[in-house]
Amino acid sequence: MQEHFSTLEYQDGRLHLIDQRLLPTTFEYFICNTYGDVEFAIRDMVVRGAPAIGAAAAYGVLMAAKEHAALFQPGDDKKFRSAIGQACSFLEASRPTAVNLRWALERMLELYDRSRWYSIDAVLEGFKLEADAISLEDVATNRRISQIGNEIVPHKATILTHCNTGSLATAGWGTALGVIKEAHFSGKDIFVYADETRPRLQGARLTAWELQQSGIPFKLIADSVAATLIRDGNIDLVILGGDRVAANGDVCNKIGTFMLSALCKLYGVPFYSVVPVSTIDFTISSGLEIPIEERDASEVTHPGGVQVAPTGIEVYNPAFDVTPHQHITGIITEEGIIRPPYKEHIESIRKKVIG
Amino acid sequence: MQEHFSTLEYQDGRLHLIDQRLLPTTFEYFICNTYGDVEFAIRDMVVRGAPAIGAAAAYGVLMAAKEHAALFQPGDDKKFRSAIGQACSFLEASRPTAVNLRWALERMLELYDRSRWYSIDAVLEGFKLEADAISLEDVATNRRISQIGNEIVPHKATILTHCNTGSLATAGWGTALGVIKEAHFSGKDIFVYADETRPRLQGARLTAWELQQSGIPFKLIADSVAATLIRDGNIDLVILGGDRVAANGDVCNKIGTFMLSALCKLYGVPFYSVVPVSTIDFTISSGLEIPIEERDASEVTHPGGVQVAPTGIEVYNPAFDVTPHQHITGIITEEGIIRPPYKEHIESIRKKVIG
Repeated sequence: MQEHFSTLEYQDGRLHLIDQRLLPTTFEYFICNTYGDVEFAIRDMVVRGAPAIGAAAAYGVLMAAKEHAALFQPGDDKKFRSAIGQACSFLEASRPTAVNLRWALERMLELYDRSRWYSIDAVLEGFKLEADAISLEDVATNRRISQIGNEIVPHKATILTHCNTGSLATAGWGTALGVIKEAHFSGKDIFVYADETRPRLQGARLTAWELQQSGIPFKLIADSVAATLIRDGNIDLVILGGDRVAANGDVCNKIGTFMLSALCKLYGVPFYSVVPVSTIDFTISSGLEIPIEERDASEVTHPGGVQVAPTGIEVYNPAFDVTPHQHITGIITEEGIIRPPYKEHIESIRKKVIG
Repeated sequence: MQEHFSTLEYQDGRLHLIDQRLLPTTFEYFICNTYGDVEFAIRDMVVRGAPAIGAAAAYGVLMAAKEHAALFQPGDDKKFRSAIGQACSFLEASRPTAVNLRWALERMLELYDRSRWYSIDAVLEGFKLEADAISLEDVATNRRISQIGNEIVPHKATILTHCNTGSLATAGWGTALGVIKEAHFSGKDIFVYADETRPRLQGARLTAWELQQSGIPFKLIADSVAATLIRDGNIDLVILGGDRVAANGDVCNKIGTFMLSALCKLYGVPFYSVVPVSTIDFTISSGLEIPIEERDASEVTHPGGVQVAPTGIEVYNPAFDVTPHQHITGIITEEGIIRPPYKEHIESIRKKVIG
């Protein structure tokens, strides 16, 4: 059950990221030398997946602090604090939908703001430890989530999943794919259908690769194939991730998630979103408030870099959609499985973790 | 409203087909010199679309007759008839789902069987006229279908369509895309969302190209985007084609059609299939009896020829799905719009056209 790669690793002042744009045909690290490189890596999806971009951004803050170290004066850190604040805003703007990015940046700023710092070395040490903690905690959280989630996976289950929610989408192990791996390695004899997940094909490129590496039996399908599998009773449950969960339980996730949820609702198939609590945005009351990122037309017109549509056409390319909580059987987190009524149960979690 | 290309054209003993595998980046004719070439062209989707493959196969029979001309003896045509029958079986096996292929081949054989032929020249002339008639009638049928279908398109409608059902899918003009063109050219100020239609991307490659050529305003979307557009009231109606319609009104069509129909049913959006009567298979009582073609894994793993999934994985790649008649608002044909109860109304059409 050991993994042979690290999605992100910070070494000697540089952030090493598996370049997820090149998988599965090329395995190569993309090296960020500046926090500007980190912003680019998130925006261009070198690294993607809500928890992974949160972890990467935390190291981005550390790198920004190094770059702005000269501005730090013990006793007068206004300029330094302002530069770090600006770096955080810059990093946050790289992807607007996932909330873990904002959560990680806020956590770094809060660390800074709650102490008096007597030297830049102490600041850098503090940031390094906090960024490491975000990554390490993410892996531990995912392990816990997977054990909790495994409870709802029947023996010999056929599971449908969407997008990539594995090691590559997190600091390690994964969320929804973590549950799937847990079920497999605990001997449940499961079978997986993986949606290819247009337009960026994270299912074909990343999930298929991770499933293959873990030796989990699976088939890859075009996204539109899922509907008949669900209708015809070939899917026992759907397990996928989440990029932002609202206080009422609405889940914003990769485009195509809503479609699956509607079909599961129609045909009585259990539908679970798997997220760390850091993906819950307690400040928004419903999914309607979540900004949906629209990405470049070329993602649709040039899959794998090859032109498949006429030049000069218009494309509507939302990266995410919102699934209403009414379609969701449960939201699996490290604090347990949240079930309806969501508003009440999410409020309990808010009280517990934030107070 | 003139088209600047012919999907298929028979000249000097050779069948010229627009090579639809290369569009939209390359416009090139694929030339069939033998009926074996025609079989390959259908199987490899050089030509596709239920009516177009029917028309192409009819010319394939003519070409088979030429190739087997030496077998023909006036007064003893057993060997020749047997060779033509085998050629028809060979052509029919190229694509198992669409019924127009079988319909066109049967029409060619019936022509042969209902006369006594005194010379091979007369046979070839008869086959040529019949194949031409199949093509010409298809265009005329599509014009009629489009005028009938235009009745259900509201002014300023936003229409969602799937796969390609235009000039390229037929001998000319198109079925569902014919209705859309008719609505546009009659001044209805429509807007179209075109599903890219994985895995073969007929929406991105062919429908987008035809819409662009016709000057119809549209946006291309990934297939999984349609669900939220339908839910959010952004689609006034869905119009798409059909590869085989059962006697109870179930429609077998490009994979992804069922998913759209389920969402339309759920959110009260009108859903129309547009087909010539030759697409109705009166011999099967429900869509459950329709064989669903499974195509090669490479269609999913190598879009546009570029590898996007790990080597050696398994893929489930059905080319079609079946939409139950309960999800269908109407089936638009040259004999009028068929509405529920489908069984009764399709039986009336059977009596009218077959007797």
